[in-house]
Amino acid sequence: MSPAELDDLRGRTRAFIREVVLPAEPGPGAPLDDTTRDALRAKARDAGVFAPHAPVEYGGLGIPIDAWSPVFQEAGYSPIGPAVLNIMAPDEGNMHLLYVAGTPAQHERYLAPLVRGDVRSSFAMTEPHPGAGSDPRALSTAAERVDGGWRLTGQKRFISGANGAAFAIVMARTPGVEGWDEGATMFLLPLDAPGVTVGPDIHTIEGAIAGGHPYVGFDGCLVPDEDVLGEPGQGFRYAQVRLGPARLTHCMRWLGLARRAHDTALDRADARELFGSRLRDLGVAQALLADSVIDLETSDAIIDKTARMLRADPRAGEALSSVAKVHCSEAVFRVIDRAVQLCGGDGVTDALPLIQYLNEVRPFRIYDGSSETHRWAIARRAASARSREVEAGAARLDEVTP
Amino acid sequence: MSPAELDDLRGRTRAFIREVVLPAEPGPGAPLDDTTRDALRAKARDAGVFAPHAPVEYGGLGIPIDAWSPVFQEAGYSPIGPAVLNIMAPDEGNMHLLYVAGTPAQHERYLAPLVRGDVRSSFAMTEPHPGAGSDPRALSTAAERVDGGWRLTGQKRFISGANGAAFAIVMARTPGVEGWDEGATMFLLPLDAPGVTVGPDIHTIEGAIAGGHPYVGFDGCLVPDEDVLGEPGQGFRYAQVRLGPARLTHCMRWLGLARRAHDTALDRADARELFGSRLRDLGVAQALLADSVIDLETSDAIIDKTARMLRADPRAGEALSSVAKVHCSEAVFRVIDRAVQLCGGDGVTDALPLIQYLNEVRPFRIYDGSSETHRWAIARRAASARSREVEAGAARLDEVTP
Amino acid sequence: MSPAELDDLRGRTRAFIREVVLPAEPGPGAPLDDTTRDALRAKARDAGVFAPHAPVEYGGLGIPIDAWSPVFQEAGYSPIGPAVLNIMAPDEGNMHLLYVAGTPAQHERYLAPLVRGDVRSSFAMTEPHPGAGSDPRALSTAAERVDGGWRLTGQKRFISGANGAAFAIVMARTPGVEGWDEGATMFLLPLDAPGVTVGPDIHTIEGAIAGGHPYVGFDGCLVPDEDVLGEPGQGFRYAQVRLGPARLTHCMRWLGLARRAHDTALDRADARELFGSRLRDLGVAQALLADSVIDLETSDAIIDKTARMLRADPRAGEALSSVAKVHCSEAVFRVIDRAVQLCGGDGVTDALPLIQYLNEVRPFRIYDGSSETHRWAIARRAASARSREVEAGAARLDEVTP
Amino acid sequence: MSPAELDDLRGRTRAFIREVVLPAEPGPGAPLDDTTRDALRAKARDAGVFAPHAPVEYGGLGIPIDAWSPVFQEAGYSPIGPAVLNIMAPDEGNMHLLYVAGTPAQHERYLAPLVRGDVRSSFAMTEPHPGAGSDPRALSTAAERVDGGWRLTGQKRFISGANGAAFAIVMARTPGVEGWDEGATMFLLPLDAPGVTVGPDIHTIEGAIAGGHPYVGFDGCLVPDEDVLGEPGQGFRYAQVRLGPARLTHCMRWLGLARRAHDTALDRADARELFGSRLRDLGVAQALLADSVIDLETSDAIIDKTARMLRADPRAGEALSSVAKVHCSEAVFRVIDRAVQLCGGDGVTDALPLIQYLNEVRPFRIYDGSSETHRWAIARRAASARSREVEAGAARLDEVTP
Repeated sequence: MSPAELDDLRGRTRAFIREVVLPAEPGPGAPLDDTTRDALRAKARDAGVFAPHAPVEYGGLGIPIDAWSPVFQEAGYSPIGPAVLNIMAPDEGNMHLLYVAGTPAQHERYLAPLVRGDVRSSFAMTEPHPGAGSDPRALSTAAERVDGGWRLTGQKRFISGANGAAFAIVMARTPGVEGWDEGATMFLLPLDAPGVTVGPDIHTIEGAIAGGHPYVGFDGCLVPDEDVLGEPGQGFRYAQVRLGPARLTHCMRWLGLARRAHDTALDRADARELFGSRLRDLGVAQALLADSVIDLETSDAIIDKTARMLRADPRAGEALSSVAKVHCSEAVFRVIDRAVQLCGGDGVTDALPLIQYLNEVRPFRIYDGSSETHRWAIARRAASARSREVEAGAARLDEVTP
Repeated sequence: MSPAELDDLRGRTRAFIREVVLPAEPGPGAPLDDTTRDALRAKARDAGVFAPHAPVEYGGLGIPIDAWSPVFQEAGYSPIGPAVLNIMAPDEGNMHLLYVAGTPAQHERYLAPLVRGDVRSSFAMTEPHPGAGSDPRALSTAAERVDGGWRLTGQKRFISGANGAAFAIVMARTPGVEGWDEGATMFLLPLDAPGVTVGPDIHTIEGAIAGGHPYVGFDGCLVPDEDVLGEPGQGFRYAQVRLGPARLTHCMRWLGLARRAHDTALDRADARELFGSRLRDLGVAQALLADSVIDLETSDAIIDKTARMLRADPRAGEALSSVAKVHCSEAVFRVIDRAVQLCGGDGVTDALPLIQYLNEVRPFRIYDGSSETHRWAIARRAASARSREVEAGAARLDEVTP
Repeated sequence: MSPAELDDLRGRTRAFIREVVLPAEPGPGAPLDDTTRDALRAKARDAGVFAPHAPVEYGGLGIPIDAWSPVFQEAGYSPIGPAVLNIMAPDEGNMHLLYVAGTPAQHERYLAPLVRGDVRSSFAMTEPHPGAGSDPRALSTAAERVDGGWRLTGQKRFISGANGAAFAIVMARTPGVEGWDEGATMFLLPLDAPGVTVGPDIHTIEGAIAGGHPYVGFDGCLVPDEDVLGEPGQGFRYAQVRLGPARLTHCMRWLGLARRAHDTALDRADARELFGSRLRDLGVAQALLADSVIDLETSDAIIDKTARMLRADPRAGEALSSVAKVHCSEAVFRVIDRAVQLCGGDGVTDALPLIQYLNEVRPFRIYDGSSETHRWAIARRAASARSREVEAGAARLDEVTP
Repeated sequence: MSPAELDDLRGRTRAFIREVVLPAEPGPGAPLDDTTRDALRAKARDAGVFAPHAPVEYGGLGIPIDAWSPVFQEAGYSPIGPAVLNIMAPDEGNMHLLYVAGTPAQHERYLAPLVRGDVRSSFAMTEPHPGAGSDPRALSTAAERVDGGWRLTGQKRFISGANGAAFAIVMARTPGVEGWDEGATMFLLPLDAPGVTVGPDIHTIEGAIAGGHPYVGFDGCLVPDEDVLGEPGQGFRYAQVRLGPARLTHCMRWLGLARRAHDTALDRADARELFGSRLRDLGVAQALLADSVIDLETSDAIIDKTARMLRADPRAGEALSSVAKVHCSEAVFRVIDRAVQLCGGDGVTDALPLIQYLNEVRPFRIYDGSSETHRWAIARRAASARSREVEAGAARLDEVTP
């Protein structure tokens, strides 16, 4: 698409979300039922705003990753917008990974129905402690080589969307056989396959993701070779390929929700009088509003920078996505928190959705790598990069003589 | 009580809360049912830890306000602890106000059953916008002078605990008659009196206060003269008398809950291994833990300073209670937020109570005067105090000559 | 220039600054003497990195504003880099304004020698209180219409670079004559003109700008019509044209210095052992380093976004430059402050330049509009923009029904 | 002294500082010359406010540590106040240590002239890396047992006040001889003793301490047995005895200076008009002022809590002094930084002393243990204390079942 076409898509998405989706939102905290969702999706298809990120050949609009942010932000302005446009996690990230790593047959069987919105999917990586969590290398679910395929055994946890999902992409440890690296491999597995258990559920504070966050168990599930996703032994690499963009699309969607909260606060600041002034004219309120604008604009800017880098240099983009994720996850929480504050008592009731939004975004500082884990990774990368500069001849700057 | 006796009371309260109350807590977010509460109260009476703050003549332990903090913090370590010990808002603040402003007959009729825990009460000041809210002077509920009493008309909102409460202390605007100042007056009113409507309810994110936060309406309710609380026309002054300590006891109770969250985080940091180290030995976790200790200790210190000042110089103590309230309400939120973070995914599920605690304390940054309103008041007082110093001869410090 | 050429320019600037300029830096806090500066400038010309932002026809490299940031950041890596490359304030902003608003004759007389580095210049807007300061509309210096020109009278203050500058761009209030708006007008005035007084000086904590920050007085100075810069009556508009980019180039230069401080901290973290570990492996240090990376990357991103907007839509870019200025000025201060902290005792001595850098950037949170003034402007713009949306039909989001 | 007498002392100190000391202050950054200092000290003695903390038998006023804070804060309101009252570091901490650990003869020879203000002293612990620094156990200066005494050899660094000091308390590693623990020992050593070298100096950004921060070398200096301070082998323990209170008195003094900066900001906020309002009435300024009040009050409260604990339970007080030190050092920096901001351009010039104050307090976040080192210690203590509770039977709070 040309810049003008992208801008038009953004405008149409904005109009669709505000005019069609907002009036159809369920009450704060209530789930979106499938009937409403499907009706809204039909309208989204008619409006030409459905699945903007997905490949054209499977029914999407095919826009490149560095053009996603404006559109995803518009979608995120409604908590149900991403589900309506079929750009919600974990499906959106799974579509991306399936597209870049999958075979034509896998595209047909798994990707196409996902893009159409006929099914939901799941990404099964996290495990109960001490398995894969903050440290993905602690992966304990294992796939054993059997004739014509693999046999999966292990326990997963916090598997977003698994209830009702048609299939999962499962990450499992694989032995170094047949010339492949020892490491992890990704498998495609229908969740009605023999040996799969979904549940018990885990009750989290947020509710935006259909299908919850249950445990999922694999008890010797058989996966034929044609359902291996990508090259065996490359699972950790694929996880990065998926996680860099997936982290960033979370930022985009939540930034849209933060804009919604900020607009709510602006409306309240406009309407409410206090001590004889409008709230919007009181400096203490202005300070909060300005800080939120700064959070929104810097988040938008770092998302944009990261998206362009993910396109130009995926590995550098994945590294930068840590920075974007920490900044945006903390910034959107602050923006919504300030909106709660500006709406006073109403802000903590269900008369406004703000406190629900706050609970929706709170886990984002933990999911997909906690702020602390990312900060650790960011610092290590910075230290290594500088060491390489010094080794390449840059002058040491910290030296002191008595 | 002597310092040693106070220390003993603190120890017994601590033991009671941890050994008796904690095991009886309902699940995260669930309310404390009356049967359980009454059974626990009976045990609290037996343990000699019930109603520590209330006057001895009405069944309390009679400790002075500058000795409350250690005991209230121990109680607050459980979300149901304050209700069990009968030191929960709004009853606790109402007991204080009834005691200092009430007549012997009012003590007998209203205070005594409240201290015994036979009834609950409410404090009806806040009104729908544009009535009394951040600006209490916007009070619109009015009492008209009638023969032998007053007739109350108006609408209140966010009246904590009103569902099921036996009576409320109602703040209403009163005309300047019979030599009294024009201003506001406080009235004692049984909530089953003719003309009182309780409801509809307001659904807030927090659930610690029994009786919710409903609207309460007064449609020409008659209050006999003997149910005027304190001197007519002095309502705003009494509101300060109540609010200074009431703000501070909130700080005490929530600080106890923040300690609970912090202990939870410490336990997790002790148990969890990550990247080959215990979490407690990782610097990023240590930084969070240390910041929480600093928040806890400075909160404890400013509470203690304010409590001593409330005893020595109530007006100065009321002013300082704004500082304590802003600092503590923000500090306890940060402490619990860090605990959520340190517990990772579990922190945002109902497997741990932390995210519920976070929602319990979030409104405290708004209730009893928002952080922004208090900051405004704090700045104004600081500016006025300094102006008085300069007027009294202190050298101007900002003068600049070219 | 093509992207590849711009990248090459950045690389050459980087090499020039690190290999040629760094070794020639004076000690912390010491000024750059003119001889050294001119020798370095000659080398910069030879290296093809001199005046990258200035018009080609006057001897610059002519790169557009959205390509300045990488180059200016490389220059700012040395405190003297911008002066060496002739992209230092206030000359750099004056070149921009002269180019867009000046006549060919003014280009020849004022712009050309400035681009060549033959002279320095000044921008005379700020006045002693209660004149133009945080509120530029309080402008009190006035120009009176006389035959063939104007007569300037007034007092300016904090006029950066005025000592030794060849000329100043002077902002003065002008009457609404000859069909022009009443308002302000910009004048070009040689500082050796009759009636000009430069001084006394104002001693500030930072020393990066040659020529200090003196008072400048105008006692009936005559300015011929040909030295009016741009259209009479449009002075406030030109001030915005100058200030938007000028604010942003400050961000670029200081961000370069923040990178220098951050590299210094990384070198120290690499070299220093503490409690048996390298500092770079200690979590508390990692948390500081990661926060600095986040500050650096978000600053870079918001600068880039603003620069592109300044090119595409100057008015929108000027508005966004407030956001960039607040974020970057606070971020670079934090980054350098953390570097001081990571270098321990050495950080506050002159054995390292860090504390000097901290003092260099501290005023940037005040100069060119303080953080508070910008926050006020940001909040007002946000409130107005949202009001326009609501007027245009957007649904009010803050409404609550009982 | 009785509470009334202490309050009177505070009032007299306040009056003395504001009426006598403030008018005699040198310009920003300039040192206090000895003549002026001695003249002011004579007046302080006459006013009965000299050496309030020192033992009565040696000429001080003998007030206990939990009464120091109000007086030290009043003194710190002037940067030269503590030197005038003879309560400046490092002398003040040395007096404390000499008093509690010294012999009568040492009191006579070293303590008495110090309390009188006849001499200055130094405390020689810190060493060049990799010696004693953030990790005091890395101590490398060593004392060898010789007949009738010890022979000291080693290099110290950052020895505050050493230029011109009469003597130093020197910390050195000592072997485990004669039934003493192997460890460190403290020695009293005149700085004109053979083998002592003072210098070169280290140039730091702050200038409040007379005598600078030079290197000090010991080349086989002989210390007779009677100049061992306290028990051999107990040096690390004595260091804690000195450092707990010394850290806290820094907090007291700097808090006084922060109050001075805050008053300056209040005066400016009162005097300055902006956009038609007084600055003190603008919300953005009010937010800054309120945050400073909160910082000042919480600092005062945690100092007071720590001082009382240092008296009641010195070991617990030493631990809490880490919390006080981190909070206060960061709070006073913020308060002064906000004052700079509120004074706008003047804030970063030498027309006001604020930027100098900012540089005076910046090192306090590093000296006496950096914020990061203290946070690490605070977290470790918290983790250990909680572990002990759990071992003693407290319920684990972090346990989760699927």
